[in-house]
Amino acid sequence: MTRQVGMDPRDAERAARARQQELTKPAGSLGRLEDLAVQLAALQGQERPRVRPAAALIFAADHPVTAHRVSAYPSEVTRSMLANLDAGGAAASVLARCHDLPLRVLDVGVAGTPAPARIVDRHEVAAHARGDLRGADAMSAETEALARQAGRDAVAALDPDTRVVVLGEIGIGNTTPAAAVAAALLGRPAADLVGPGTGLEAEGVRRKARVVQEALDRVRATDPASPDARLRQLGGPDLSALVGAVLAAAERRIAVLVDGAIVSVAALAASRIDASVRAALIFSHRSAEPGHRLVLEALEAEPLLDLGMRLGEASGGLAAFPLVEAACRLHDEMATFAEASVPTALADDESSA
Amino acid sequence: MTRQVGMDPRDAERAARARQQELTKPAGSLGRLEDLAVQLAALQGQERPRVRPAAALIFAADHPVTAHRVSAYPSEVTRSMLANLDAGGAAASVLARCHDLPLRVLDVGVAGTPAPARIVDRHEVAAHARGDLRGADAMSAETEALARQAGRDAVAALDPDTRVVVLGEIGIGNTTPAAAVAAALLGRPAADLVGPGTGLEAEGVRRKARVVQEALDRVRATDPASPDARLRQLGGPDLSALVGAVLAAAERRIAVLVDGAIVSVAALAASRIDASVRAALIFSHRSAEPGHRLVLEALEAEPLLDLGMRLGEASGGLAAFPLVEAACRLHDEMATFAEASVPTALADDESSA
Repeated sequence: MTRQVGMDPRDAERAARARQQELTKPAGSLGRLEDLAVQLAALQGQERPRVRPAAALIFAADHPVTAHRVSAYPSEVTRSMLANLDAGGAAASVLARCHDLPLRVLDVGVAGTPAPARIVDRHEVAAHARGDLRGADAMSAETEALARQAGRDAVAALDPDTRVVVLGEIGIGNTTPAAAVAAALLGRPAADLVGPGTGLEAEGVRRKARVVQEALDRVRATDPASPDARLRQLGGPDLSALVGAVLAAAERRIAVLVDGAIVSVAALAASRIDASVRAALIFSHRSAEPGHRLVLEALEAEPLLDLGMRLGEASGGLAAFPLVEAACRLHDEMATFAEASVPTALADDESSA
Repeated sequence: MTRQVGMDPRDAERAARARQQELTKPAGSLGRLEDLAVQLAALQGQERPRVRPAAALIFAADHPVTAHRVSAYPSEVTRSMLANLDAGGAAASVLARCHDLPLRVLDVGVAGTPAPARIVDRHEVAAHARGDLRGADAMSAETEALARQAGRDAVAALDPDTRVVVLGEIGIGNTTPAAAVAAALLGRPAADLVGPGTGLEAEGVRRKARVVQEALDRVRATDPASPDARLRQLGGPDLSALVGAVLAAAERRIAVLVDGAIVSVAALAASRIDASVRAALIFSHRSAEPGHRLVLEALEAEPLLDLGMRLGEASGGLAAFPLVEAACRLHDEMATFAEASVPTALADDESSA
């Protein structure tokens, strides 16, 4: 299923880096936009990478852990927001229209049935019993595999020529499993990763951290520390679907535009499962959720934006998409010094202008 | 000439802030995109501001100070880059196409005539004698007024309904007058503001700083410290045209998307001339040019992007434009909690999800 590529990634990277030196601008003056073009060149195995077709995928689920009062919003919001996404009134709907990106939303376990009209129903995941993290594993191995496959299937259903996929999530309570999985993978206490999510007050954050710490304590003694085990014990179906989507995209050399805190945890888990996915990851923004910093550090990731966003729904990834598009189009469409007959820089010893 | 507006700026700001609280997202979760929409609402005097029509203006000039070897590139590059912009091969050309923005380039004093076909020729500015800063004022008062008027005229020639204008510049050597004007306005030594520009090596940067310091020393004793005097003594026609464009845009309640180091100096000078322009300014990016930091601090400005760019040509402003557009469209097109029948946040004492 991997798209045929013309060049070895290292050759493509070298060719793209050389082209950047020839474009009509001071060397390096496009900063990280140059690095983005070179990263995509290596991934796609071509000197001049493309950014479209591109698409956005959002995975939605609810979480039994919300019974422990870990969110500022009631669980019903997830279902209402699916209808809002279906009707085109959510932030992700607006941003996808704004940047002309097809947006697909997948229900991988939202409470209640059926999904609204245009939402892809992968509700079979939720038909299985799920746990509250603190007292019981989030999912059985079978459920986790189903959720992960839903993510893989969503990528497989994209236009086969897709070059960039923006990944996002929605689900009341889903910063709790994300924080739990991140804490387990990073070997950190819960308090380092737990934050206010959609807007929990300080006492709520402490309560949420206690729930996550108890979940961590529960699994520490009983299980191997593999990322697969952690996703099953401490995660949720949306997180597992994201992991499946990251793995499937990287296999196809599709760049993944990672949204905020939760998608970054999925990216971390995916890169622990297969380190080679890292080359496909572009980090869109630094979330206001405090634990995001540690996840980004572990991935040696420097996001493109830092605008205090913390909405989820792929909103950060969608907001950053035009930067990725601009990077590729600059790389492809700018004239070279030779084409434009522009004099190049003076040697250091003859600077005269 | 000011567009009629429907509301007092403070009423529009309040209404926009209230609307942000009603959109289907946790309060504040769109971070600075919310602030951008509110800023534009106040500026346009309407609860739901618009971002288009939008346009980009680039002012181009050469500088006699290049005789003192203050740039890594020869002066002929400015003229070649005008042809490159005319042919659509420059970075700004690509970004303007990418974001569907009309781009107008104005020659306000590039060496040699005439300007290429689609470049607006305001070359009458350059017909006057200009100085090298170190030994002589950059411009006479008459020349400075001509250049400033060219900037005003460029804004007046835009679609009268324009909501956002991206301002940029091009001109070998033009970081030198920008650093000189900034140092004078901020009361700082030259070394604090002078940087490598297009890529000067360390000895070149020291040489450039000496030229700027000598220019500062020359004017300190002789003249009043007004921004107008500093622009005439130490600036250049591109900088003065930018000042004129900022003042004219703010008068028309057009938001100015400020590019990097040089346009920020023009924004600083304009805000010293008329403090009310500050409300119209959006800062697109933090340039890699080190002096930019001090100029941004003086303006209490926090740019949207920090990507290590240092190209000029409005490239940072053009790269950031989609964020401004996204902010306004989110503000306008997202459903409210009432419209989408989404439950709002729980009170703190009833958090249960």
